[in-house]
Formats: sequence, structure tokens, C-alpha cells
Amino acid sequence: MFAAYYEGDHRIVVRDVERRPPGRGEVQLRVAYSGICGTDLHIHDGDMDARVARPAILGHEMSGTVVVVGEDVTDWTPGDEVVVVPLDWCGTCPACVRGNSHICHQLNFIGIDSPGALQNYWNVPERVLVRVPTGLGLRDAALAEPTAVAVHDVRRSELQKGEKALVVGGGPIGLLIASVVKAVGGDVLVSEPSPDRRHLINRLGMRAIDPTEGLAGALDDWTQGAGVDVSFEVSGSIAGMEAAVMSLATRGRLALVAIHSRPVPVNLFQFFWRELRMVGARVYERADFEEALNLLNHGAIPADVIITDVVALTEAPRAFDLLHSGQAMKVLIDCTEAK
Amino acid sequence: MFAAYYEGDHRIVVRDVERRPPGRGEVQLRVAYSGICGTDLHIHDGDMDARVARPAILGHEMSGTVVVVGEDVTDWTPGDEVVVVPLDWCGTCPACVRGNSHICHQLNFIGIDSPGALQNYWNVPERVLVRVPTGLGLRDAALAEPTAVAVHDVRRSELQKGEKALVVGGGPIGLLIASVVKAVGGDVLVSEPSPDRRHLINRLGMRAIDPTEGLAGALDDWTQGAGVDVSFEVSGSIAGMEAAVMSLATRGRLALVAIHSRPVPVNLFQFFWRELRMVGARVYERADFEEALNLLNHGAIPADVIITDVVALTEAPRAFDLLHSGQAMKVLIDCTEAK
Repeated sequence: MFAAYYEGDHRIVVRDVERRPPGRGEVQLRVAYSGICGTDLHIHDGDMDARVARPAILGHEMSGTVVVVGEDVTDWTPGDEVVVVPLDWCGTCPACVRGNSHICHQLNFIGIDSPGALQNYWNVPERVLVRVPTGLGLRDAALAEPTAVAVHDVRRSELQKGEKALVVGGGPIGLLIASVVKAVGGDVLVSEPSPDRRHLINRLGMRAIDPTEGLAGALDDWTQGAGVDVSFEVSGSIAGMEAAVMSLATRGRLALVAIHSRPVPVNLFQFFWRELRMVGARVYERADFEEALNLLNHGAIPADVIITDVVALTEAPRAFDLLHSGQAMKVLIDCTEAK
Repeated sequence: MFAAYYEGDHRIVVRDVERRPPGRGEVQLRVAYSGICGTDLHIHDGDMDARVARPAILGHEMSGTVVVVGEDVTDWTPGDEVVVVPLDWCGTCPACVRGNSHICHQLNFIGIDSPGALQNYWNVPERVLVRVPTGLGLRDAALAEPTAVAVHDVRRSELQKGEKALVVGGGPIGLLIASVVKAVGGDVLVSEPSPDRRHLINRLGMRAIDPTEGLAGALDDWTQGAGVDVSFEVSGSIAGMEAAVMSLATRGRLALVAIHSRPVPVNLFQFFWRELRMVGARVYERADFEEALNLLNHGAIPADVIITDVVALTEAPRAFDLLHSGQAMKVLIDCTEAK
């Protein structure tokens, strides 16, 4: 079988490797599709070499089929279509004890901290599996992980039906958040500087504004000067954070989705003055995965528009090139080719 | 009758002025006590001259007795002991329409934006009155306003019984917050650099830590490395904000109480990584006032320790001097003297 390895310095190498049986409590999956995300790009760029042991098999967004079940596995049988919640926790740290194991202090993020899905066959503990609903199909199911991120973000924001939301940043996660906002009955506006991405957002029937051209005015018109109920900071930029704060109505909620690796100047006076709320949102819980699959199955997520490219596992390096070029939205790697 | 006027440039002048009858819908109060707060000090220092029209009668923390009722006043009679919720709102702005009239976009803060309680007799609209519980007494009732701030802050933090809270800043509001935390069954630790204030906090049976000497270690010991459930940022300093963020456990809540007049660098990564929450908390709602009076009446607020000085209205300038010296915690002005 084949596996794609990140070897450092932008190098992805596909190798023929031995297929090993699943261990006790594990299942072996035939991987169907694995998506590449922004974190994978950061790894590819070497930004996370301090964390990622090389050579590393990346891939934490995936779909596949159970082919072999290991000893003591009771809930799964060959042929089951599944996705993986790529989180493994310690169960004993303060976060786990408080019931927040998804942000365990010693979290093993499968596909980053341990081998991922960019291979033909993948052995994983049975507890990380979630069943794919009948009729969804494995291509769209591969969006379960990023969609679960968006579901989690929207849930953390406590957005209610009929509320107005600003999404700051119209990349894959921003677009998924906007789709989930619509699915739960909210109105959405996306702030995105790229004309190509704005065009794509418009194609989905959503409004996109260039933040360099009068975002504040557009928000005033849209909300009659009140501000939005919820903003999602997905840009990772200082200007994006400022927009996410200043857009909010009295007691509005800011969901902090982006990773800001350095302290950012924040207008705390506005938080005080308007009694704003900010909530950090990281990864997802199992319920978010289940809701993500449900939304995908009911056509609430525009998978056809979001998935712009599918490339074969042997061409994995091209997937990274496509994303780096800025031409692609979501690139899936087809891992089903001949072994 | 006498009234104390802020005339700019640190000048407080007490003048003999005409006593006027209450208007329609107003009551006339004989003011008993009026407290001086940090905002009054900022006004005295000239920091708010752009907002405060001079000469200005300050005073928004008070207690008193109804002496005359104006036309159309139905709920009050002479002799009623009352405090004033010093907020008057427009009823039509987006904040009011959303049910958050306490932070109305055109808020008239009585005692700052319109005449306050530093006078023998004060005419106010009947809708701002709250009844003082039998047996409380007017001296302690004068703490209702700052106590309502603390009640509001604790309510915004969603602190639950048994949770651990860090209060960053041990001035009057920090001390009141710590007292309210205790009253609702929380455990509290106060971070305060002043040895005098730490001494006073200790006298109340609460733990105070010098933030320049190992706050992080003390928190680790106290919470077994988990962090606190809630932090209150009452210091208004960059270091205080940093401590309020870094002290929190997974999904901990930061109540932002202090006014930060400039953007402050915030560790947003920590908000993301631990899914923290921050809520702005400003002034109070009527329910907070009622709960404040209830807590004062049940001895949950150490009024005897917090009220360090009482000075006569004619000596009002001395109250400001006492507070500026850093020797006083809460100074009340006795407004009951001869007219």
C-alpha cells in the first residue's frame, strides 16, 4: 500500500509501505478521501516542525470504509462507512476532568501528532469512528471534519434563528460557518478581501463584502445601526479582529475561531461599553461531528462548490501546490487507487 | 440648602442654593449619604471634562428619604427610605430595543451627565427609586450602587456555587466583587499590589496575593494546576488583564469590569486554545440593585470595613483629598447637615 509522508522543507513523498493488521480495539479503514486543511499547509511550510515528528503521515479530514476489525472490536463490521473524529485524549488532565476532553491538555491530534489518513489503509481505535449516514457518499462525507469545526463555532456563538452574523474571512472554514449559520436560520454576511472568493460566496447566494471598501457602512445599512448579533473571527488578522469587535451590537458575541499566534491589540473598552462577549472555539465534540454529517446529508453544506479539486494519493504534492496557489478552496486526496 | 459643585481643575465648591419643588413624576429626596467613586475622582482630575458640563453636582451613589412627591407620583410617600438607580435611558436606541436599556446608546448617567446627590435635597424621577429594606439603615444603603456593580459583574460571570474566582484588583469594587463571590458560595483570591489593601482584605477573611510575587504559583497550588473558573479584571492595567487571562481554567470566564481606555494586547491564542470566554460588564440592572440591598441587609457585604470615612457635605473637598491620598477605601459624604 501507499502512504504520503511529510519529510520537512515542503517535501511530500509517497512511498510503498507494508500494510499492517489492526491492533486490539482498532479497526482498519480503507481510506476513501482525505482533505487538506490550513493546518496541513502550515505543517508543509515547516511552521510546525517543533511539534510534528518527521516523517509524518498527515491527513485528519477523511472518509473511508471498515475493512478489518481487530480483537475486542464489537460495534463495527467490514463494509461500514465511517469518518474519524481525530482526537485522542488522556482522560485525567484538568480539561478532561472538567468534561472538555476535546481540548485535553495532552491532546493527541490524530494526523498531526500521530499518523493520519494520507494512506490507502489506516488503523485507528474504534472509539474515534462516526457512522456515515446512508446516502451521503464518501466524497461529501470527507467534509465532516471541517464542517464539524463550523458547527462547533456556531454552537459556541449561541447563534439563534433570525439573528444576523458577520463572518470575517471567506476561506473554507468561513464558508462552512456561513453555511451552518444559514442552516440554523441566521442571516449572514461574509467579509473577504479576495474577489475570487467573494464571487464564489455570491454563487452560493450569500453576500460578501470587501473589507477594504466600507464594511462598516454595509453593516450599518444591514442592521439599521444596531450591529450584528454574532461575529466570527476567522481571518487571523489584526484588522479582522478589529472588524469582528466593532461590528457587534450590544451584548453581541464574538466567536474566536482563528489562531492568533501573537497577542493582538483588542478594544476592551468596546467590550465593557457594549457588554460584548467573546468565546474561543477550538475543534469539535462528537455531537458536532454527528450534526455535521446530518447537515451534509441534507444538502445544507454546498459540498460541490467547496470541493474544488480531487487528486490521487500519488499526486499528493500537487494538492499542496494547488492550495498554496490560492486557486483551490478544498482539495481532496483520493486514497482509493490501486495498492 | 447646600450643594457641592465641581467647577473644573480639581475645584469642588459648596454653595447655598435655592431648594426647588419636584416636577411632575418626580420626588424630592432628602439625601442622607452619597459615596465618592473612582469615576468621580476621574472627573475631579479633569479627565472627563469633555463629557461633564460644569458646574456639575456629582454623586451617583446615595441613600435618602422621600420628603415631597410631585404631581402624578403614585408609588411613593414622604418618609420612604430609598436609593436611586442613577440611569436614565432613551427607550428607542438599538440597546434599549434589545432590552439592554442599562447600556442605552444615549444613556443619561445621573450624577455625571445630569445633577447628582451631593446636595441636601435632590429631585429625581420616581422610576429610578428602589426601596431600602427595613432595618438596613441609610449609611450602609449608600453602598447599594457599588454593590450593584459587583452583583452585576458576578452575574455576568455566571459564577456558580463552589467555583474558584480570582479578582484582579482589590480596591472598593474588587472588594465588593470578592464579597459577592463569597455570598454566592464561591471561593475567592484577590490579586492586589498594595500592602494596606491586602491587609484589609485579609481582615475580611479573604486571601490576597501580591501579583509581583508569584501569583501564578499561588494559583497553581490553589487549583492543582487547573486554573480558576472565573477571573474579574478590575485593575485596568495590561498586566492585570494578562493575569486575568492566564489564570483561567479550560472554558473559564473572564469578567471585564475595568475601563481600558486604549486597546490592550490580549493573548487570543489562549482564548482559542482553552476555549475561554470574556464578558464585558457595565453598571447594573434594577435586579442587581435589589440583590445588592438584599446582600447588604443580610450582612454579606462588610460595610463597616469598606466605609473608611464619613465627611460632612460642607467638607466635600476633603473627601476627594482623602481618596486621592490612597488612605481611604470608601468615603461617604453626609448630606443631612443643617440647611
